[in-house]
Amino acid sequence: MAQVILLRHGESLWNREGIFTGWTDVDLSEQGIAEAQHAAALLRDGGYTFDLAYTSVLKRAIRTLWIVMDDMDLMYVPVQRSWRLNEKSYGALQGLNKRETAEKYGEEQVHLWRRGYDVRPPPLPWDDPRHPRFDPRYADMQPGELPATESLQDTLDRTLPYWHEQIAGSLRDGKTVLISAHGNSLRALVKYLDDVPDETIAGLNIPTGYPLIYEMDDDLNAVRHFYLGDPDEIARAAQAVAKQAAPETKTGR
Amino acid sequence: MAQVILLRHGESLWNREGIFTGWTDVDLSEQGIAEAQHAAALLRDGGYTFDLAYTSVLKRAIRTLWIVMDDMDLMYVPVQRSWRLNEKSYGALQGLNKRETAEKYGEEQVHLWRRGYDVRPPPLPWDDPRHPRFDPRYADMQPGELPATESLQDTLDRTLPYWHEQIAGSLRDGKTVLISAHGNSLRALVKYLDDVPDETIAGLNIPTGYPLIYEMDDDLNAVRHFYLGDPDEIARAAQAVAKQAAPETKTGR
Repeated sequence: MAQVILLRHGESLWNREGIFTGWTDVDLSEQGIAEAQHAAALLRDGGYTFDLAYTSVLKRAIRTLWIVMDDMDLMYVPVQRSWRLNEKSYGALQGLNKRETAEKYGEEQVHLWRRGYDVRPPPLPWDDPRHPRFDPRYADMQPGELPATESLQDTLDRTLPYWHEQIAGSLRDGKTVLISAHGNSLRALVKYLDDVPDETIAGLNIPTGYPLIYEMDDDLNAVRHFYLGDPDEIARAAQAVAKQAAPETKTGR
Repeated sequence: MAQVILLRHGESLWNREGIFTGWTDVDLSEQGIAEAQHAAALLRDGGYTFDLAYTSVLKRAIRTLWIVMDDMDLMYVPVQRSWRLNEKSYGALQGLNKRETAEKYGEEQVHLWRRGYDVRPPPLPWDDPRHPRFDPRYADMQPGELPATESLQDTLDRTLPYWHEQIAGSLRDGKTVLISAHGNSLRALVKYLDDVPDETIAGLNIPTGYPLIYEMDDDLNAVRHFYLGDPDEIARAAQAVAKQAAPETKTGR
């Protein structure tokens, strides 16, 4: 039975400040570090381990992984980083305050940018210094490959090839895999694994810091999934994520 | 001009206690952490960066690398771990106090075990719980591949294939490479790069925490090498390493 552990990174400094982050390389907050430590304790106490880890090229996911590896005494485990596991690009919204953006464009519009399956936020202009083509971590990519903005569908379209070409092969080799990534790259994976319809994916919320275990059959069909941790805490954490995206929220993170 | 940065991990807890370490997975001491931070500052202040990193599967080298990546804001850089960059195995000496071992077997014998080019310490018995075949990090290897003890020559024989098959290819692709490793796996690389004779390699000492830069021509011949940092401090650090291995030392770390 193949096993994948999905882990959404803990709170970042910009989550805390209510700023659109996307591909911006913002670090974990103190709370985010504590969430990663808590995730490690849940895995360790549950008797889990992993043979391989995948993560994005953004430090909030990498640091979450490092904390888990350190606390589980698994620093030797191979790690693969890929931009394909990055958070959805929020385009020109990156660096803007979420509340102020809602006041300017309306909450319904902001909700669509955040949760509409095929809706893209306004793109980063080609010469905007925030455009990923100026970032040395993408120096080996063609500038045209780099998104100036993304919908969840776009995120799924660049995340799934990585699943099929890299992660699935490790699972077929009998490896247990941990993926430390972001709200939307993980929602993309869950949408694929559980065949969630386009119309309902907006209602699917993954809390930060609670390991989500998927068990799969030999054809890598998801057989069951479950979170580690206290069910009430997890429900509250998922609801907190849902509220961030709801149009009635004025103080959304 | 290809560039390799060699970095020997900072002081470990067993270095501090004067215990033979080898393949034992001992963490950095507080001083070792400070040495890694100092190395990162030297690289950053010197305007250095790297595109790829290689390290062993031992946490004192991995943590040194993590500290450097974090302090240089390079957490996104790909990392490859390999047992081929591990410290030389000290066999059955691992876990023993160096001073007590010298009192028991004589200082000349301990010096040979530590610095004789082709001398192996006594091997770990096949059923010794310290034998690497019981360690899950080597689960994918054939037990017969795993050393029960190693001379420096043995260390070189398993480190060089990794240089030729992995690291050299990255250098030919124009990548700058950092290797975070151990006293003896780095001495093995330096012996190869500078063609140091078997008879004189015992006198070559690499201090902890000072980046050692190698510049190479297109055929990967070493053109020149130099340490970053204060020359007097580096000389003192190298001398401290040399004194650890000298037969007249009674308080060797």
